[in-house]
Amino acid sequence: MSNEPKSGGPVSDAFLADLAAASRILAEREVVDGFGHVSQRHPTAPDRYFMSRSIAPALVTPDDIIEYTLDNEPCNARGRGSFLERFIHGAIYKARPDVNSVVHSHSPSVIPFGLVSTRMEAMFHNAAFLAQGVPVFDIRQKFGATNMLVCDDVKGEALAACMGACNVAMMRAHGSVACGPNLQVAVFRAVYTEVNARVQHWAAALSGGAPLASLDTEEGELADLTNQGAGMRAWELWRQQVRDTVNW
Amino acid sequence: MSNEPKSGGPVSDAFLADLAAASRILAEREVVDGFGHVSQRHPTAPDRYFMSRSIAPALVTPDDIIEYTLDNEPCNARGRGSFLERFIHGAIYKARPDVNSVVHSHSPSVIPFGLVSTRMEAMFHNAAFLAQGVPVFDIRQKFGATNMLVCDDVKGEALAACMGACNVAMMRAHGSVACGPNLQVAVFRAVYTEVNARVQHWAAALSGGAPLASLDTEEGELADLTNQGAGMRAWELWRQQVRDTVNW
Amino acid sequence: MSNEPKSGGPVSDAFLADLAAASRILAEREVVDGFGHVSQRHPTAPDRYFMSRSIAPALVTPDDIIEYTLDNEPCNARGRGSFLERFIHGAIYKARPDVNSVVHSHSPSVIPFGLVSTRMEAMFHNAAFLAQGVPVFDIRQKFGATNMLVCDDVKGEALAACMGACNVAMMRAHGSVACGPNLQVAVFRAVYTEVNARVQHWAAALSGGAPLASLDTEEGELADLTNQGAGMRAWELWRQQVRDTVNW
Amino acid sequence: MSNEPKSGGPVSDAFLADLAAASRILAEREVVDGFGHVSQRHPTAPDRYFMSRSIAPALVTPDDIIEYTLDNEPCNARGRGSFLERFIHGAIYKARPDVNSVVHSHSPSVIPFGLVSTRMEAMFHNAAFLAQGVPVFDIRQKFGATNMLVCDDVKGEALAACMGACNVAMMRAHGSVACGPNLQVAVFRAVYTEVNARVQHWAAALSGGAPLASLDTEEGELADLTNQGAGMRAWELWRQQVRDTVNW
Repeated sequence: MSNEPKSGGPVSDAFLADLAAASRILAEREVVDGFGHVSQRHPTAPDRYFMSRSIAPALVTPDDIIEYTLDNEPCNARGRGSFLERFIHGAIYKARPDVNSVVHSHSPSVIPFGLVSTRMEAMFHNAAFLAQGVPVFDIRQKFGATNMLVCDDVKGEALAACMGACNVAMMRAHGSVACGPNLQVAVFRAVYTEVNARVQHWAAALSGGAPLASLDTEEGELADLTNQGAGMRAWELWRQQVRDTVNW
Repeated sequence: MSNEPKSGGPVSDAFLADLAAASRILAEREVVDGFGHVSQRHPTAPDRYFMSRSIAPALVTPDDIIEYTLDNEPCNARGRGSFLERFIHGAIYKARPDVNSVVHSHSPSVIPFGLVSTRMEAMFHNAAFLAQGVPVFDIRQKFGATNMLVCDDVKGEALAACMGACNVAMMRAHGSVACGPNLQVAVFRAVYTEVNARVQHWAAALSGGAPLASLDTEEGELADLTNQGAGMRAWELWRQQVRDTVNW
Repeated sequence: MSNEPKSGGPVSDAFLADLAAASRILAEREVVDGFGHVSQRHPTAPDRYFMSRSIAPALVTPDDIIEYTLDNEPCNARGRGSFLERFIHGAIYKARPDVNSVVHSHSPSVIPFGLVSTRMEAMFHNAAFLAQGVPVFDIRQKFGATNMLVCDDVKGEALAACMGACNVAMMRAHGSVACGPNLQVAVFRAVYTEVNARVQHWAAALSGGAPLASLDTEEGELADLTNQGAGMRAWELWRQQVRDTVNW
Repeated sequence: MSNEPKSGGPVSDAFLADLAAASRILAEREVVDGFGHVSQRHPTAPDRYFMSRSIAPALVTPDDIIEYTLDNEPCNARGRGSFLERFIHGAIYKARPDVNSVVHSHSPSVIPFGLVSTRMEAMFHNAAFLAQGVPVFDIRQKFGATNMLVCDDVKGEALAACMGACNVAMMRAHGSVACGPNLQVAVFRAVYTEVNARVQHWAAALSGGAPLASLDTEEGELADLTNQGAGMRAWELWRQQVRDTVNW
């Protein structure tokens, strides 16, 4: 343990509880199942982030949260195992100083948008964060045949590069990643990426291939600003629902 | 507070409880999620209406209900925040003396009908209220790029004008609005607009573009009359399910 | 009350409890929502049948069960209201001596098959009872514009005539009806009509219009025989789930 | 009872509890409904396997588990009825020494892939076990019109032959079978076959018939190796959820 990197400093119990709650919120809303993870950058040490040990999101408690460097080294593992794909998180935090929270998931409605040439568009105001585009990361292009996982720094960097300045990226034959300026917005975006996917499936089927009247870039920017405030209403609901089942 | 408009007079506890219950009914049936709202006109002062403060529908209690003028000014805010989109409600009450309850929602099955050229039709008798047509309000036509929200009187009026004498209108890249002569019918229509959307998605996919044998206008009128009575059976079920979880 | 027709004789508490449970089973499995009904012929008086008073299926108790003649006159109403569409039931019992239980429902997956030219086929062995064909009853053909309801004897007869010797019939822009030699089989068929509808929607979408490798008539007959025995396993599960929530 | 074949020897309570829990896990995740079954080979006697008596999967307890020979003869029936389709299990254990657990199910999303010419492909890394191909067993080809059930040794052998070295096979107009080197992997594969089916339905609809960027064979092999370890995280979640409702 003495070889572990230094902590960025203590964080509040509320910080850890909210991050653990975020895992359960994503599970409850079927954005994640037994797999998937959400992380949050250290509030005062931007070169550190927090994420649960490798367990199913629905089971995470504050005691499961580990602190990591942006090279994805645990600062306080204490025997707790790390997610194989933590490299997604560190790489995005390095590339994107504006991002303070990242969600990785594989919800069934979203995966199709990494398998076809149709791109995800913003179907409604709550999904405005998608209007700037949703790129697809195909791990095969740079790394050939793999186990599909972003399981080292180089793959994490390639994913972050593909994501660019966007809020969400698809991962071919795998899942997606959503990020935001804080935990609440990142969770909101992960949830509404999933909802938007369902809306787009139905809209595309109805339109029979004709273009959809989705949000344009300007509408997207304007609506996203509003959502970052109004979206807290959803967080309060979801956070309360977690509190109804645990005492933190 | 002394500057607030006058109340239209007291209403019964049962009135407020039913309106709060309507929020939870819509949440339970997934017509609304963390967002969306239902209002009811004042029973004796037609220039006033009631709606919850700005919280998630599943959390609304009778104490959250605020009284508004038809200009959407709160009469008794007492520090409680208002929905950004309350302007939908006041505008419809002004334009439609026959309407005494309005629901605004963004359920995933319904949104597609505001994104494509296919119009929603009445797929079965319970959705007969759709047979007179379901117009699409595109906020962009009159207001250019916006945050998509009906957040002032002018936008509310434009939506009400688009809705005309219909019971339901789509809002492009946003959601929909349903209204009725009383709370129970408005909730019924919001719920069955969502169900009808799911039916039409599947029917359209099966038909491969061929016309659907939906209700014609005359069938719609006849069936809607029956529904306004028989629909109370659904309300009784839903209201009881709320009573099973709260004491009001 | 003295003008009411005579009862066919008392039935056991277990008979009434099973029939009430069937309503709740259908509600729990989303075959019915606030609307829909299930009936059972009198076990010893074939000119009588039993069905709940007009309430939501999820709320039915044994005390809600009313006895009817095949002309759909209540024998023991005691102020309890009857379903507007009880005429479906009496007409089928008259036309089909082999049928001892009838379910009427409007589940969203099933309704589309009454709106398009594609017919429902038997997608798998549990839905074998569909292999003999699923006709569509269009109330408009004989009765012009109506409120869509089968609310008198003549409409009931027309529906029963359209159904012929089949186990299930679609009702255009309305719902469907399923029947069987006993309560358990009728409930099984109503449930698996709904499941089969979902399977066929996906199969038809995947096939892009090419014929589906559904059960042929001979396979349907053979599999249906097996199901009438093995199907009791599902009933036992469903009946137990009702017993877990009520004491009858 | 004295005529029954000999047991392969006692197994631990934990072995029986895990196998019973697997039934409930599959029911909870809607891979099975009132029908379907999961079996496990005897840990020390490879010519024996265990499976519950013929009841709905959601009701199975450790006391319901029966031991069978690979000819599907019960060793300890004690009056408990056997599944009609146990022949699926014995035949696969005979043909596949690498397989130690088998799941048979008919989930609505999966059945369509046995009814059309489109084959199931591996849509994402968790479904990597599908990348080696998913054959379709059509019982009609060898046996003509049947009740569709694999209800004797000859039909079991034909199914096993069709399955070959694959992990999953479709059964036309019936369902599917999934297998694995141990109980946890077989359950994982049954669950993710269902998830994969839903993903492929949406992806195929979006692509309009164009090929999907699914896992190729090499990616499938690499990802499946990882899953066999990481998949235990899902099992731990699911097993815990069963423990939350029973005391075994």
